[in-house]
Amino acid sequence: MPEFELIDRYFKSRARSRPDVLLGIGDDCAVLQPPAGMQLAVTMDTLVAGVHFPLNTSAQDIGYKSLAVNLSDLAAMGAQPAWAMLALTLPDENETWVDAFMQGFDELARQYQVQLMGGDTTRGPLSITIQVTGFVEPERVLRRDAAKMGDRIYISGTLGDAALGLKKCLQKIPPQFSLPYCVQRLNRPIPRLELGRALLDVSHCAIDVSDGLLADLGHIIKASHCAARIELVRVPLSDDLKKYYGSNPDWPAIIAGGDDYELCFTVAPENEKCVQAISRELNLALTCVGDVVAGEGIHCVDQHNKEIVFTQCGYNHFANPAS
Amino acid sequence: MPEFELIDRYFKSRARSRPDVLLGIGDDCAVLQPPAGMQLAVTMDTLVAGVHFPLNTSAQDIGYKSLAVNLSDLAAMGAQPAWAMLALTLPDENETWVDAFMQGFDELARQYQVQLMGGDTTRGPLSITIQVTGFVEPERVLRRDAAKMGDRIYISGTLGDAALGLKKCLQKIPPQFSLPYCVQRLNRPIPRLELGRALLDVSHCAIDVSDGLLADLGHIIKASHCAARIELVRVPLSDDLKKYYGSNPDWPAIIAGGDDYELCFTVAPENEKCVQAISRELNLALTCVGDVVAGEGIHCVDQHNKEIVFTQCGYNHFANPAS
Repeated sequence: MPEFELIDRYFKSRARSRPDVLLGIGDDCAVLQPPAGMQLAVTMDTLVAGVHFPLNTSAQDIGYKSLAVNLSDLAAMGAQPAWAMLALTLPDENETWVDAFMQGFDELARQYQVQLMGGDTTRGPLSITIQVTGFVEPERVLRRDAAKMGDRIYISGTLGDAALGLKKCLQKIPPQFSLPYCVQRLNRPIPRLELGRALLDVSHCAIDVSDGLLADLGHIIKASHCAARIELVRVPLSDDLKKYYGSNPDWPAIIAGGDDYELCFTVAPENEKCVQAISRELNLALTCVGDVVAGEGIHCVDQHNKEIVFTQCGYNHFANPAS
Repeated sequence: MPEFELIDRYFKSRARSRPDVLLGIGDDCAVLQPPAGMQLAVTMDTLVAGVHFPLNTSAQDIGYKSLAVNLSDLAAMGAQPAWAMLALTLPDENETWVDAFMQGFDELARQYQVQLMGGDTTRGPLSITIQVTGFVEPERVLRRDAAKMGDRIYISGTLGDAALGLKKCLQKIPPQFSLPYCVQRLNRPIPRLELGRALLDVSHCAIDVSDGLLADLGHIIKASHCAARIELVRVPLSDDLKKYYGSNPDWPAIIAGGDDYELCFTVAPENEKCVQAISRELNLALTCVGDVVAGEGIHCVDQHNKEIVFTQCGYNHFANPAS
């Protein structure tokens, strides 16, 4: 099937019709009407087969996840999602794959009224780049550099499920543990968009946990010129993860494993009550795991207040394996 | 070097400082201020090593070209370029390569006040996806579906140089022909941005010639529900190309070879004088190659008005080699 028919059949037909998309797929550019008085939050993430998802991931999950990780960045800014562009590089013409990919993409796009309005299809090793745009009101964004000494550090949902799900997909887990919840968390991360919007009233500082808590909280404290103290015992864990690990959780995998797509945010102590109200309203656990303190770096302590030092700090695509 | 240092050193440092980029590289999203009263034109193109450029292309040329092909799409809409995002997938950590790539990117970005304001770096087979945003005034865009019967069909610059340059780079040309101009045209296409802006006064319909004249003009006539008659003898050719081919030009390579990044546009006959004025002002050849006519398809005729039929119609990433 020629590239242009592919575009017509699988991309144009699925385009939502937002009134602010004046010219969608099918010209040299899409033409968009930004809403008056709003600013734009934009992000772009690439997923490479075998690097960002196991090679045995279903096309539908890849489609869902590719959009989800981008929407997660909008969530971390407190933005309202609107438009998406898709650059799809495929090793061969495989209509069934594209159809399933777009089903997964669409499932999430529909949920948040995101319109696919352009992109590119090329031939090459499987790789997906998605760019998304959201709207924010002026001066109302969650930034990495806005943590303040004395702020409490919160995490939404639970950490470590996706890292455990990845182990399962890579067949590094005994077969008697099927861990469907953790595999679901890996393949179908939920972008915390409602949470991001709600946090605008109580927080100035958030990041999405894509590379692991240590790495991502590390960006916050570096940008905010402060340090963090994390009580490991408070890190929220799912029942499935606790059941698998028993009394001996794999802390490096949990706090540096990545792919959680939860939000890590800081709030002044006087706003903690509001955080609990948001938690109830969204039916989403929001757990305080520590404090913003003076100094440098992230200090993790165990239940005896003894510091635990981790050597691996998140996922780094360009780390030298020999170093 | 960790991914984040790479970003700091090679991407952040090169960011222009446009006042409409409120938050640039370094957070979950960039935050942008769209200009009041303007609409946005957005496009995204991927270049895969070995597919969109020969493997022996220099990093600097790849950086330049990756941005150029995207700006060319803005040119084809008559848009004013503003913002860029870069997703760079690299097989390994190679600072020298990234530095050279960014030099090429920057050379062009500087020329058009384009600011790099975000993106992603990942590890995988070499591939570059760039997304660019430009501004257009409401209702003032060049579209593919706006050609009208009786319009004259114009081409900027010359066609076929890049296809010949590609042959040279792939060592399919005898060594006595060095063809530096054609190689330059392949590696350093000039996005016709000034032309796109100028055409807004005289045309409603344009496309950039990225896949070859037959394929791209094909999009215009399909979207505009009309046909085209092209006089091959009028197709503008460079001196270098004419010198190489002599009296026997390789027409399929010239009109279906792609990578020209010239604009193909249509104008009503009463506007042809204005086209010549634009040509003089921009010091850029604008050549009438035929007419928009009733019917379907593109009909190419030779100097004796005899129709020449071409079987290969542009470059299709998903064409079945067996068909």
